[in-house]
Amino acid sequence: MKSIVILGCTGSIGTQTLDVVRRLPDRLRVVGLSAYRNEALLREQAAQFGVPADALESGDAADLVRLATLPDADIVVVSVAGAVGTAATVAALKAGKDVALATKEVLVAAGAIVTAEARASGAKILPIDSEHSAIFQCLQGQPPEYVSKLWLTASGGPFRQWPKDTLDRATVADALNHPTWPSMGRKITVDSATLMNKALETIEARWLFDMPTEQIGVVVHPQSVVHSLVEMVDGSVLAQMGLPDMRLPIEYALLYPDRAEMGVPRFDITALQTPLTFEPPDETRFPALGLARRAAKTGGTLPAVMNAANEAAVGLFLDGHLTFGAITTLTARTMDAHTSLPEPTLAQITGADGWARTKAHALLDEDHSLLTEGS
Amino acid sequence: MKSIVILGCTGSIGTQTLDVVRRLPDRLRVVGLSAYRNEALLREQAAQFGVPADALESGDAADLVRLATLPDADIVVVSVAGAVGTAATVAALKAGKDVALATKEVLVAAGAIVTAEARASGAKILPIDSEHSAIFQCLQGQPPEYVSKLWLTASGGPFRQWPKDTLDRATVADALNHPTWPSMGRKITVDSATLMNKALETIEARWLFDMPTEQIGVVVHPQSVVHSLVEMVDGSVLAQMGLPDMRLPIEYALLYPDRAEMGVPRFDITALQTPLTFEPPDETRFPALGLARRAAKTGGTLPAVMNAANEAAVGLFLDGHLTFGAITTLTARTMDAHTSLPEPTLAQITGADGWARTKAHALLDEDHSLLTEGS
Repeated sequence: MKSIVILGCTGSIGTQTLDVVRRLPDRLRVVGLSAYRNEALLREQAAQFGVPADALESGDAADLVRLATLPDADIVVVSVAGAVGTAATVAALKAGKDVALATKEVLVAAGAIVTAEARASGAKILPIDSEHSAIFQCLQGQPPEYVSKLWLTASGGPFRQWPKDTLDRATVADALNHPTWPSMGRKITVDSATLMNKALETIEARWLFDMPTEQIGVVVHPQSVVHSLVEMVDGSVLAQMGLPDMRLPIEYALLYPDRAEMGVPRFDITALQTPLTFEPPDETRFPALGLARRAAKTGGTLPAVMNAANEAAVGLFLDGHLTFGAITTLTARTMDAHTSLPEPTLAQITGADGWARTKAHALLDEDHSLLTEGS
Repeated sequence: MKSIVILGCTGSIGTQTLDVVRRLPDRLRVVGLSAYRNEALLREQAAQFGVPADALESGDAADLVRLATLPDADIVVVSVAGAVGTAATVAALKAGKDVALATKEVLVAAGAIVTAEARASGAKILPIDSEHSAIFQCLQGQPPEYVSKLWLTASGGPFRQWPKDTLDRATVADALNHPTWPSMGRKITVDSATLMNKALETIEARWLFDMPTEQIGVVVHPQSVVHSLVEMVDGSVLAQMGLPDMRLPIEYALLYPDRAEMGVPRFDITALQTPLTFEPPDETRFPALGLARRAAKTGGTLPAVMNAANEAAVGLFLDGHLTFGAITTLTARTMDAHTSLPEPTLAQITGADGWARTKAHALLDEDHSLLTEGS
């Protein structure tokens, strides 16, 4: 029986984590919950899972840290939106608690610090992202020195086949129309459409698996059946596949190295109706992957700046102010304007994050061509 | 540095094993070679790899046993044709030597005895079949209790899309035209066309991975890119893929758990031109899989009889005497006529093998409808 704390329990990953707990009552129990806005649902979840009132939070980063280090907790699910979960992740790892990580921004912004904490305490960072869970599953039992490349699969998003000159006319509704994964949050769905999600995942994989970004590739696989792959030095490739159901990576992260049948729909390879295809990403139409390589190579505060500028740009896009193509343009210009600090502290990373959000808005004031008509 | 003996060094697997040794001179050396017929090539190989004359054999089962237990040998590659390698496999395992097994008939006929020897001595049986190597790679690091099913992929052979009533007109040339794997032997290529190869592999997997045949499925995958899959209790599926190049499973078996770059063409997932498809096998047109389930369920000497009857039938087909459809019909009738001995000794298995070959020919004399015109 593992005791879990869920930071961000009312979001997509949080509610699916609770569904996994509901299906595995002999293996998992909830000992702490936090939500950012939806306090009504938080109370309802607490009542359903028997979580005491003093183990509920709907507050700031300090409150998350308190929950993340609850003496009862074995594992902390970090599924808050954006980089706000970093302090809680570091605190949990420092306290020797495993972290099941859905918030990739934590590793993107502060991967060096977070992974150093995990190494120091011996606690594990277990991926909840489906791609990283796939790689994590494939890496089991494979000596690390024989792994030559990690391949992240990308659905390609709703604009995979849109010509470059039509992308600027893409609406919010177009971008939120994800082809294969149901019920993701709005921010991550837009990130899938720009491929920025894959850019963030590249940096996330770099830290989770201690692999240089040159050895992390992206392959577009529109059917989202193969969730990612690992290439070995001899040319053999291992892959993990299944239904697009986030409960699977959640379950594996929570029970690792165990597994359990949850009574969810099962993947049947003989019933696969759609042929599986693979193609290289088009970096001309989707320049985000290049930004990730640049951010990872420079390091320091630049990945945090890339992530924060993208969050600001996606927010502006979702509010109808920014064209679709401008999301990565604004992110790139914010990165251009940044002087990266090497080996930053958490405070410096938070500072760079705030700087980037302000800078992105300032850059927008200077160049109205990135705005939608009427903004 | 591992020292290897190759039983069957002039065949397809034997010559490819020598190619692997040639590419990895710091890791592998050859200390013994056997060939059945091609003594000229055996001498040439011995000279090239520096194998002394007293470690060469072109003789009978007793000679193979002598080579398989050479004091110098760490690992014995068993790639002789048919069940003749069983005694050598048992002898190698008894002497504590790992066996890299290409001759699936050894496990089909004598799986209980062979795996008991391996358990007793602690020596490993490492699969060279590409499907079983794929499963073996996927199983690394996965606790066995969470494995729910093994999926063997089948190309479907050259007759995958032939209507049932045309199969009897299939010629030897048609059957030898394997769609995806180059340069396999003639016997195994015909077995691919009848799906008997997958039937034999089902029983092989049953012993290699200690898994009941009810939990071993077959999925037709005409592109032969995914070499096999493992389904876990939670519904997650792990797969191994790569080019159709037997040097990869050979290398993994010889170096396990290590790997090495061999300078052979590499699989590039982004350059995959053909969509990957999967479908259930058609057991009406290809009844061999049902024969395997029946043989595995009955156990005893019946799997050896299935294998021997099939070998006889394939021989008759290759010599032009038997129609294509009659291969499995004759195998099934021979099985019908057999009374299986439970927990047989190796001698009893050899006896059943011989009985089946004689019986298959006798049954053919009784029913000329199985013969080709003019036979």
